[in-house]
Amino acid sequence: MASAPTSGEDSLIARYFTPIATDPGALGLNDDAAILKAHGEDIVVTTDAIVEGVHFLPDDPADTIARKALRVNLSDLAAKGAAPAGFVLTLALRAADEAWLTSFARGLGSDAGLFGCPLLGGDTVSTSGPLTISITAFGRIPEGKMVHRSGAKPGDRVVVTGTIGDATLGLDVLRDGAVGAALAEDAAAKAALVGRYRVPQPRNALANAVRDHASAAMDVSDGLAGDLAKLCAASGVSAAIDAPSIPLSAPAAALLEHGIVGIETIVSGGDDFEILCAIPESGLEAFVHAAGLAGVAVASIGTIIAGSSIPRFLDARGREIALPRLSWSHF
Amino acid sequence: MASAPTSGEDSLIARYFTPIATDPGALGLNDDAAILKAHGEDIVVTTDAIVEGVHFLPDDPADTIARKALRVNLSDLAAKGAAPAGFVLTLALRAADEAWLTSFARGLGSDAGLFGCPLLGGDTVSTSGPLTISITAFGRIPEGKMVHRSGAKPGDRVVVTGTIGDATLGLDVLRDGAVGAALAEDAAAKAALVGRYRVPQPRNALANAVRDHASAAMDVSDGLAGDLAKLCAASGVSAAIDAPSIPLSAPAAALLEHGIVGIETIVSGGDDFEILCAIPESGLEAFVHAAGLAGVAVASIGTIIAGSSIPRFLDARGREIALPRLSWSHF
Repeated sequence: MASAPTSGEDSLIARYFTPIATDPGALGLNDDAAILKAHGEDIVVTTDAIVEGVHFLPDDPADTIARKALRVNLSDLAAKGAAPAGFVLTLALRAADEAWLTSFARGLGSDAGLFGCPLLGGDTVSTSGPLTISITAFGRIPEGKMVHRSGAKPGDRVVVTGTIGDATLGLDVLRDGAVGAALAEDAAAKAALVGRYRVPQPRNALANAVRDHASAAMDVSDGLAGDLAKLCAASGVSAAIDAPSIPLSAPAAALLEHGIVGIETIVSGGDDFEILCAIPESGLEAFVHAAGLAGVAVASIGTIIAGSSIPRFLDARGREIALPRLSWSHF
Repeated sequence: MASAPTSGEDSLIARYFTPIATDPGALGLNDDAAILKAHGEDIVVTTDAIVEGVHFLPDDPADTIARKALRVNLSDLAAKGAAPAGFVLTLALRAADEAWLTSFARGLGSDAGLFGCPLLGGDTVSTSGPLTISITAFGRIPEGKMVHRSGAKPGDRVVVTGTIGDATLGLDVLRDGAVGAALAEDAAAKAALVGRYRVPQPRNALANAVRDHASAAMDVSDGLAGDLAKLCAASGVSAAIDAPSIPLSAPAAALLEHGIVGIETIVSGGDDFEILCAIPESGLEAFVHAAGLAGVAVASIGTIIAGSSIPRFLDARGREIALPRLSWSHF
């Protein structure tokens, strides 16, 4: 008789995931639960799932799928001002494919190390449907210090990190849309946009600055316009955005300039995983300074104003830009 | 313009889940993360997903699907000796059906209240595949006190709660198998077995007794034989089980007596969600007393022994029972 009887599921976990679950709290993935130490702080909990055909494409490399699944959750922790503490994974698979799982686990383990967010546990189930990866991630933050969506006040500056719109343009490239056709001769630009779709760059380096200076924050996952509207609704305010101030990558700026895409696509496309926050005027200089030290680009794109109307996006001449839809929705 | 712009997904969350997310840490499901207070204790984290057609049937009532999704996680917390602290939910749906979601949320909210385990957050995504519900649940336990799978010592008694095998018999009834045919005239027995499959009875009332007295514990989810083998492997021991001591419900005992099912079906069927634990002889009386006070039936079914072989199940004459498979596996 075997001394360590295992089912196929146990073997799969032991082979691919135990090697990357190095945190003591994970108990080697050999128990029914994990242990998370709070160290006297609040635990911030966030959960986001990604589904094949919805959040990633069937042809995406397994290692980038793993990274995206973790990073969309890390992005939430960053926007709440919390330091990563660990995560649990639920993987719903049609079949256990060795090459795919090897690559998936490698990407996941690499990012767990890179962001200091250890794999603590999980569940692996079979499904007849699309591959679905659900991650619940934990962060630690001093008691009462989590940054909420609510809290923005009239006069606060509206600030975003990085660049907006690249991921949705990258998805268009992968779908052989107009963006890919316009960039047919520019492999580097296409690769950069596709990279932004497949592997978000969560701004965890900026978490402490957000925690110390933001009156409200969230990550941009469903589109800047819609997510800003949510932040404003939660805060009981409105906002005026200067669209030309929205930070764009060089390819996005060129596509916009040549009329391949409109600004409405940029601000409602989703999958940016940048931080959107409101910074009181008094803290702006310190925030920008901290962002510089963290190596994260930040841009002030507008102002929080009193009112309850949907935030307005204004063009270079101060005219309101019509946005047919604010963001992506599943239902 | 609307003052509170919402997507279909936001509306769904606000309509069905915000009313049951009453814990302050849930922030009304109106933020990107929840706050979990550790109160100076360890946080125990467990995650289990249930998939339509695998863990529940497409025709199961929505409210029992919700209860099962939460209870399989509560069962893990109970077996680890932890008190429920809250949970997050990922729901992958094909469509947003009003009647289904109303019933699902009602069942979920009812159980959250019943077990003192509040809904803290979640994610709702669309899928073309089977309905999938992934829950990550949190428990609190004094530092260092979580009960592990490892820790069982030779001489410890092997104890299980409740009755074993009912859920797999209930599944057979739902699938019009031999069990249902044998019980054709006994609607009450069929309903009892189906009830055990659809709505597990996690033994959270026994968590403190497990924490105080068990040297090792886990919940029985994949089948008693396979789960005991896992506990023994983690503890570096073996076990001898007296099969006639395994507690059975009246319908299960009758089916066994009449040869409709064999003991191997009972001990490898899975979905029991009872607690399996090792109790040192010195603590057995106190454990049984505590179980009586908690109103949870417990039965001593065998002994932990030295060795590394797979646990043996012995019949009334002391002969080893052959088990063609130990438990359910997805892969």
